[in-house]
Amino acid sequence: METLVELIARKRDGGRLKEEQIARLIRAYVDGDLADYQMSAWLMSVFLRGMEEDEIVALTRAMLHSGDVIDLSSVPGIKVDKHSTGGVGDKVSICLAPLVAACGVPVPMVSGRGLGHSGGTLDKLEAIAGFDVRLDVEAFTRTVREVGTCMIGQTDRIAPADRRMYALRDVTATVESIPLIVASILSKKLAEGIDALVLDVKVGRGAFMKTEADARALAKALVRVGTLAGKRVTALLTDMNAPLGHTVGNALETREAIEVLHGRGPRDLVACTLALGEEMLVAGGVAPTAAEARPHLERAITSGAAAEVLRRMIEAQRGDPKVVDHPDRLPEAPEKLEITAEQDGYVVAIDPLEIGLSAVALGAGRTRADQKVDPAVGLTLLAPMGTRVTRGQPLCHIHARRRTDGEGIQERVKAAFQLGPSPAPDSPLVIDRIDA
Amino acid sequence: METLVELIARKRDGGRLKEEQIARLIRAYVDGDLADYQMSAWLMSVFLRGMEEDEIVALTRAMLHSGDVIDLSSVPGIKVDKHSTGGVGDKVSICLAPLVAACGVPVPMVSGRGLGHSGGTLDKLEAIAGFDVRLDVEAFTRTVREVGTCMIGQTDRIAPADRRMYALRDVTATVESIPLIVASILSKKLAEGIDALVLDVKVGRGAFMKTEADARALAKALVRVGTLAGKRVTALLTDMNAPLGHTVGNALETREAIEVLHGRGPRDLVACTLALGEEMLVAGGVAPTAAEARPHLERAITSGAAAEVLRRMIEAQRGDPKVVDHPDRLPEAPEKLEITAEQDGYVVAIDPLEIGLSAVALGAGRTRADQKVDPAVGLTLLAPMGTRVTRGQPLCHIHARRRTDGEGIQERVKAAFQLGPSPAPDSPLVIDRIDA
Repeated sequence: METLVELIARKRDGGRLKEEQIARLIRAYVDGDLADYQMSAWLMSVFLRGMEEDEIVALTRAMLHSGDVIDLSSVPGIKVDKHSTGGVGDKVSICLAPLVAACGVPVPMVSGRGLGHSGGTLDKLEAIAGFDVRLDVEAFTRTVREVGTCMIGQTDRIAPADRRMYALRDVTATVESIPLIVASILSKKLAEGIDALVLDVKVGRGAFMKTEADARALAKALVRVGTLAGKRVTALLTDMNAPLGHTVGNALETREAIEVLHGRGPRDLVACTLALGEEMLVAGGVAPTAAEARPHLERAITSGAAAEVLRRMIEAQRGDPKVVDHPDRLPEAPEKLEITAEQDGYVVAIDPLEIGLSAVALGAGRTRADQKVDPAVGLTLLAPMGTRVTRGQPLCHIHARRRTDGEGIQERVKAAFQLGPSPAPDSPLVIDRIDA
Repeated sequence: METLVELIARKRDGGRLKEEQIARLIRAYVDGDLADYQMSAWLMSVFLRGMEEDEIVALTRAMLHSGDVIDLSSVPGIKVDKHSTGGVGDKVSICLAPLVAACGVPVPMVSGRGLGHSGGTLDKLEAIAGFDVRLDVEAFTRTVREVGTCMIGQTDRIAPADRRMYALRDVTATVESIPLIVASILSKKLAEGIDALVLDVKVGRGAFMKTEADARALAKALVRVGTLAGKRVTALLTDMNAPLGHTVGNALETREAIEVLHGRGPRDLVACTLALGEEMLVAGGVAPTAAEARPHLERAITSGAAAEVLRRMIEAQRGDPKVVDHPDRLPEAPEKLEITAEQDGYVVAIDPLEIGLSAVALGAGRTRADQKVDPAVGLTLLAPMGTRVTRGQPLCHIHARRRTDGEGIQERVKAAFQLGPSPAPDSPLVIDRIDA
């Protein structure tokens, strides 16, 4: 049997690793027989040499089985989750999960925190007073069964290999590797005990994948590997060349997501939520086609059923359910600064990366994994893409903890808005759909 | 200024790093700001992406300056050292350094220990009772000045970055990389305060470089980078398809090296010593050409001057100088087993890798860096390459601590000897010479 160092050398030399060899590497890593410095050398060889599909499946399985797989057999129905590759203003999970659950599809969701310019669902949920994202597996299972959905963070028991490898990749320049991204996403999601997964692969300046070609390659790999691992997996490619919705920042985004369940909310956020919801209802067997799924979603909103699921989920997770009807119970930042247009024109671009990083600078996000976030701060876009503005008209509100924090990013936020003499052509939110 | 992770990513993507960037990485590593797992990811990208010559020079300089550079300005003359890339039975340093020093060229030598099938000069010297390879820099300098040569181990202060990187490469499958090998060798050697360096790049089954093409590439890189770093560097490619000399094992090899200084010793060992000695005398300005250097070396042997330098060096390093004239003062193993020929024929091959690993199995070497070695054990080749033997004639003595140790490797040692009906064509010991 090869030594662990020989297995590193094999990938280094462009060889293909067998399922058993990949399993051995991951097990050794979790057991402490393969050190971080050995794992990072192996990760770099995977980054540079790539992996065949069967290797990615093996890696996904090995990472999945490094910890517990939640047993949701006590929850009737086809369990479906959604995963987004991350963007700016992406609060979709918070409205989508209750909406889909209200239509009869159980949605067990293990989410992440924000890092860098991109936010995280857990941080947004924690803007709700008391909300607990650390339920144990029993409480998680019970909530999915009784309420229809539950949103928690990755526990120590869920794919521990992924947790350590993810942290290691972040500091060793081995993040942007399709095999590693695919195995990381799928190992975590498969550990939830789901039957099907809908992926929202974001494309553009505010996304991890900047080009459609890269995003498509990632989406295809996710769908194929997920399918080979025995799950029903589909993906939507969606646009992330501007922030999604009108808010960036934790409480602001939670509030905006709640709006969607009340039948309001910005057009792009609603469109994204409904498109993903259609996929999930089809995957969950509630509707045979996306077109036929749409009325279910619309009814769940107008009837108030979706909002009721959110209330019950918040209650089950020890949060304040009254925020659903009284969003002013969410924390608000003490300082508000206004950015105004310096000329007449149309808003033709809002740079999501600059907006995301501005929110991080206010304290809404993290540059290091161990930082705390401020739930109240963030940005409200008052003039979204396509808006016709006149000189002096407000473009954006900055919600800051201290006035100086807001002043520090004024120029950056202003520069993120690009005005032109005529509106930019409307680009579709959903670019493409990938299935097995 | 780029972050350290960005510098890793730059090499990962095949970019060229500037001198300042490489210096920053190495400094951060030594200072603890770059973790082992980050260094190993960078090492793997260097392994797979390679380095331009100027990058290797920068890496060598950065590793050199991670510690102290010994100041030998108080030693008059051109200081010249020799480095071998390692083989089986390679005890050349022990006779070469006193020989060259006796001709008037100071030889400051920082050597290594054995690892794997290949032995190390320090282990061989420590077979001499009392011999101290841990002199401090003052004693080292004084001994080089007063005796002409001194042989010590790498201290904590000499190229500490190399020491840590070398250990890391060993366990991360990043050893066989020309840029990393070159920087490792040269940073250590340049830290000795030398003016010139002669390299013995071994080629063949018992060497690190198995093919002449690989060895030539390494030799060229060493010579060019060493020259760019301001030193006079030349290299010989020498054959390592059979053990060098007739002994493998620490005391056995020290004894054989002493024989050379008494005008005896096996033909190949003498040839290797004289060829490298000629290079060193030319580099040291004692002779204008190799041919003119030869008589100096021969005289130093016949006059007893070289043996006298060795005596004085051993004395200065607290060892027993009487071993030079009474080699039976060296430790001897209690058990001796004989391997005999099973047929008539000529010895056409002696596999150096199998011989080296057999010696390790006896306890003469290490499989892990923290193991102790047994100075007394090893092998004596009684029928070297080309010998005509008859059935039953002794081929080899196994010198073992316990009889069972020797029995355990009998078959392996026997299999290392290949007999044929006619002698193999003589292959030259020195394959080529590389200079700037």
